[in-house]
Amino acid sequence: MAWNTNLRWRLPLTCLLLQVAMVVLFGVFVRYSPEADAHWIEGKEPGNRSSDLENDFYYRYPSFQDVHVMIFVGFGFLMTFLQRYGYSSVGFNFLLAAFGIQWALLMQGWFHSFHDGYILIGVENLINADFCVGSVCVAFGAILGKVSPVQLLIMTLFQVTLFSVNEFILLSLLNVKDAGGSMTIHTFGAYFGLTVTWVLYRPNLYQSKARQSAVYQSDLFAMIGTLFLWMYWPSFNSAVSNHGDAQHRAAINTYCSLAACVLTAVALSSALHKKGKLDMVHIQNATLAGGVAVGTAAEMMLMPYGSLIVGFICGIVSTLGFVYLSPFLESRLRIQDTCGIHNLHGMPGVIGGIVGAVTAACANVQVYGQEGLAHAFNLDGFKTEWTPSLQGSFQAAGIFVSLAMALVGGLFVGGILKLPIWGQASDENCFEDAVYWEVPEEPKNAASHHEDSTLKAPEP
Amino acid sequence: MAWNTNLRWRLPLTCLLLQVAMVVLFGVFVRYSPEADAHWIEGKEPGNRSSDLENDFYYRYPSFQDVHVMIFVGFGFLMTFLQRYGYSSVGFNFLLAAFGIQWALLMQGWFHSFHDGYILIGVENLINADFCVGSVCVAFGAILGKVSPVQLLIMTLFQVTLFSVNEFILLSLLNVKDAGGSMTIHTFGAYFGLTVTWVLYRPNLYQSKARQSAVYQSDLFAMIGTLFLWMYWPSFNSAVSNHGDAQHRAAINTYCSLAACVLTAVALSSALHKKGKLDMVHIQNATLAGGVAVGTAAEMMLMPYGSLIVGFICGIVSTLGFVYLSPFLESRLRIQDTCGIHNLHGMPGVIGGIVGAVTAACANVQVYGQEGLAHAFNLDGFKTEWTPSLQGSFQAAGIFVSLAMALVGGLFVGGILKLPIWGQASDENCFEDAVYWEVPEEPKNAASHHEDSTLKAPEP
Amino acid sequence: MAWNTNLRWRLPLTCLLLQVAMVVLFGVFVRYSPEADAHWIEGKEPGNRSSDLENDFYYRYPSFQDVHVMIFVGFGFLMTFLQRYGYSSVGFNFLLAAFGIQWALLMQGWFHSFHDGYILIGVENLINADFCVGSVCVAFGAILGKVSPVQLLIMTLFQVTLFSVNEFILLSLLNVKDAGGSMTIHTFGAYFGLTVTWVLYRPNLYQSKARQSAVYQSDLFAMIGTLFLWMYWPSFNSAVSNHGDAQHRAAINTYCSLAACVLTAVALSSALHKKGKLDMVHIQNATLAGGVAVGTAAEMMLMPYGSLIVGFICGIVSTLGFVYLSPFLESRLRIQDTCGIHNLHGMPGVIGGIVGAVTAACANVQVYGQEGLAHAFNLDGFKTEWTPSLQGSFQAAGIFVSLAMALVGGLFVGGILKLPIWGQASDENCFEDAVYWEVPEEPKNAASHHEDSTLKAPEP
Repeated sequence: MAWNTNLRWRLPLTCLLLQVAMVVLFGVFVRYSPEADAHWIEGKEPGNRSSDLENDFYYRYPSFQDVHVMIFVGFGFLMTFLQRYGYSSVGFNFLLAAFGIQWALLMQGWFHSFHDGYILIGVENLINADFCVGSVCVAFGAILGKVSPVQLLIMTLFQVTLFSVNEFILLSLLNVKDAGGSMTIHTFGAYFGLTVTWVLYRPNLYQSKARQSAVYQSDLFAMIGTLFLWMYWPSFNSAVSNHGDAQHRAAINTYCSLAACVLTAVALSSALHKKGKLDMVHIQNATLAGGVAVGTAAEMMLMPYGSLIVGFICGIVSTLGFVYLSPFLESRLRIQDTCGIHNLHGMPGVIGGIVGAVTAACANVQVYGQEGLAHAFNLDGFKTEWTPSLQGSFQAAGIFVSLAMALVGGLFVGGILKLPIWGQASDENCFEDAVYWEVPEEPKNAASHHEDSTLKAPEP
Repeated sequence: MAWNTNLRWRLPLTCLLLQVAMVVLFGVFVRYSPEADAHWIEGKEPGNRSSDLENDFYYRYPSFQDVHVMIFVGFGFLMTFLQRYGYSSVGFNFLLAAFGIQWALLMQGWFHSFHDGYILIGVENLINADFCVGSVCVAFGAILGKVSPVQLLIMTLFQVTLFSVNEFILLSLLNVKDAGGSMTIHTFGAYFGLTVTWVLYRPNLYQSKARQSAVYQSDLFAMIGTLFLWMYWPSFNSAVSNHGDAQHRAAINTYCSLAACVLTAVALSSALHKKGKLDMVHIQNATLAGGVAVGTAAEMMLMPYGSLIVGFICGIVSTLGFVYLSPFLESRLRIQDTCGIHNLHGMPGVIGGIVGAVTAACANVQVYGQEGLAHAFNLDGFKTEWTPSLQGSFQAAGIFVSLAMALVGGLFVGGILKLPIWGQASDENCFEDAVYWEVPEEPKNAASHHEDSTLKAPEP
Repeated sequence: MAWNTNLRWRLPLTCLLLQVAMVVLFGVFVRYSPEADAHWIEGKEPGNRSSDLENDFYYRYPSFQDVHVMIFVGFGFLMTFLQRYGYSSVGFNFLLAAFGIQWALLMQGWFHSFHDGYILIGVENLINADFCVGSVCVAFGAILGKVSPVQLLIMTLFQVTLFSVNEFILLSLLNVKDAGGSMTIHTFGAYFGLTVTWVLYRPNLYQSKARQSAVYQSDLFAMIGTLFLWMYWPSFNSAVSNHGDAQHRAAINTYCSLAACVLTAVALSSALHKKGKLDMVHIQNATLAGGVAVGTAAEMMLMPYGSLIVGFICGIVSTLGFVYLSPFLESRLRIQDTCGIHNLHGMPGVIGGIVGAVTAACANVQVYGQEGLAHAFNLDGFKTEWTPSLQGSFQAAGIFVSLAMALVGGLFVGGILKLPIWGQASDENCFEDAVYWEVPEEPKNAASHHEDSTLKAPEP
């Protein structure tokens, strides 16, 4: 089928329409939180700020910037591994994230920061908006190379909405702890994206197979993404934890888990190759699974060795997933998962939810202390009788809610994206920047080649 | 005209002379601020530090590091988009910035941190030195590919001096607020650079046209620069704001403005291409205009929707500038602006100055509170009768002063740089690393090609 | 000699064995420090935390993340300058550092954080673990391209152990100050690595000479590493200094030293080339020598001009080293130093130790104040009579101890690594990713070439 990939009116109109809507909604709803307002609003904020230092800005801004780098450079460059899709990987990720953070500020704001008709935003809202967009970046990985930027903006619009509803159910209704988002970000994002790509199944994608692989330089660019994700993940998992020991502990646990994960990912990558060679796909992705899998439990008393064990397991599971499960999913279940997000975010996300549930269920006064337990699980305003095993059950329920939201939402959004009006490329022109970008000609062949020559004419 | 580009004596002597001068001047003038001095100098610093935490270091160091990354990686890699000028983009930017920050510590120190014969430096001085150099990096963008490193060092010497004078007039004489430098950094830097490139006009630059464009990989390298500038811009605009809510607010406003800017830049880029394709030049540059344009107002009560509107407008203005204005400036006004700094820093800088003036003129007690207003505009030591509209007028005056300093200074410095003794390349050898760098031969053609073969012999 | 480079069993077994050992040892020994523990352990931590803000996390976490970036992106990408060794540079650095930080947490923990049978870890331990691994990354630079990942893991195991012993002797027995590690990290790491590469001398390495150089793109990737090292070095040298003015001062001094170093490195690079051209090797490496050389003295009252002088000298020494000393070391002393670590870490490290000794010996009450002196040199618990010259002597002794540990340890570890069982490549296959990595074929020659075609058959 020959689709029209000229986005000249569709993309500009979509962008402008969405951005005008953001301006209007921000004008009606969004104001500064008292800590960012020149006019300190007395009585709005519990606690008295005796000093500028008590401003939440100083507790969270460094972590915010690290998370920001993960979303834009981390996810953006991680996906540049494809030989002819670097502009789109970085550029579309940039576009969807820039829109997504605005929409997330509104959606999450209505649910969590709504006071007297206004959403009051501060640095924690910025972090949470980045988090929410992180789940869209995850889902983008499954459909990378096969969708137009218009589709991505529409997916972002819906996914951010669904994310916020799911997050509200988990955090506010079920009182689940999920500071690093194993469930809300990774499990939800991955299974949402996998469902969307299942709906968008392309039977003739093999026609673009030649471009669905790396070249030498593109794998190095991807390592920039991998390393910034890996290095800053301790900030990701600790960014919105309680001040003090919880942030401190979350960073330590994530650091440990990620370190262990690298060794087992390398071990499996080599062991599964007939000549013992390493595969960049595993190094780029499976080494990160440890960060995903402590997303829920990092702020809990998981203990450093507990973190190592989680990372140990996830490096193995993730690499095995790339080698055995991804081909199976594609050939049998028709799930074309470009970046293998099931291995990096799907399975480790579910593992992370389980680890969190078990860790919460094992919480006790001996380990946390009386005050520490109340502080760690925010028991001050808790109405019903709280027990660790109850917390564990709610945590486990959170996994299933996230999965259900992802599957139902993914079917719905996938159906919308399947409409042949969004400028998507034909099966033989996937994974190709030249479809949507002005691509420079190679300098040596400047005279003989035209940029579009890499694009095949769609079959009639 | 055949110029001698051999810098063997000129570059080393310039570097060593400047560096020796720095050592001597630092020896005579520069000492630690009390907060960085082991011997806490009582009575020098207002306020009593009850705790190490009150040290300004902890308020500003994370922002400093982000600004540092913007100057060296952000500006450096943004300019690597040219196919054969990556070493020079990153390397010369590195060189001029390393010299510029030292000279800026002195110049700004004499104006703002001079006590009892000594310049007392702390983390805020480091940030301001980086800021000052930022304006040189901006100007570098206009003349990229057409000047020698000796010229760049000389330009840096003069531009830092002029910057510091202009900054002193604005901040200390006019009491202008400009924490993120829309006027002092971007407007001044851009129009200074444009004037210099106008003076250095090269009528036969078309002979290097083949190299004045990107290749696939160079555009990806440039995106590293773009993204680090974009991500860390909230730190840039908040780095030297007042502690507490002002820093917090500046970060939020910049985050919002930049997000909106991405969507309108993408919209215009696509709408202005006949097939609706995106142009990397716009994505790399116009997406940043929103950060420039809230440089003055970010710390004020611009409101989140106000920031979105500013970003919205600047994404459009900047992209239109790349498509329509830059070709006009080059063909009619003989302004050869390699990186299009007029679109990224020039127009958005002026817009930023205007937005700041309007926002200041609209300040009132209802929005800021009595204390907040005095705090935000530093009214404690203000001698004359202060009104918001007066502040607005001074802000507006700051734009004109910056423009005047840029034009006059640019003419003067351009005239010096035009002397044919600085080792500049001839018109047919511009945008080529091999003029000033030992460039590796391509591995496959190692036997047949010599590195210098890309350099054309100058015409007689 | 034809060695078997198939790591299929050796690498996985080594990784898994080491990681299992880490899990067990962490399980037995490692717990959270009181500041990261939900159950605040009263009486364990001196001082009372009245506020979450007093948590060491907020003093050190931003610096920790910068150091983390230096280890993984800084060192990793700095070594990608080789044309066909980018995967290994980044990937093996990633692997050895991920293992090394775990082992360092244990080793350093036993020496410095051991309380009642447990190692109590917090953010400062994470920084110190990264520091320790930094010395392994330094040593890796000398043997880059010539060893297998199994050898690197074994070297890391031993080097971390020796580093910790040396660090204990210096910091705890000799009461040496070395916050930025001129001696413990750079001097030790460099001379250890040089000794190892001397033991591993490859007489026929010229057979791989064609790959032991850069291509255009690889030099740009390396600049990513250079710049992140350069920018974040102020964090490196201040990360574990005393809170307050010491951290503040260390950052300022490092900033100054590095800036000066860039100008003299550029000057020498140009002056030593017959046409005055710059060499990327010098820009990538010698510009960093100033950071190494203030590693010991940065937190002392070195004064800004003192830092400039140190940077000035080291930029010259380091560039001269690359041009004259490295070829001499290779041809006469059989030291094949791939990255020239002797010029970046060896000589500047020793200079840094000397600068630290002299600066300490010159300390006095006029400069530091009574309290400041006691604070800066931790004299509270000091038993014997302390004088600045005594401190200086101990500092100087630290240089010799570090050198001795490096030489003896390097001989021992080099001997182990020389065993022909670790999967190292033959002399004609060095500097080649395809030995240990699945390398993508170039897209244009996909049909005709096989990935392994770049590997030469070993000579019989």
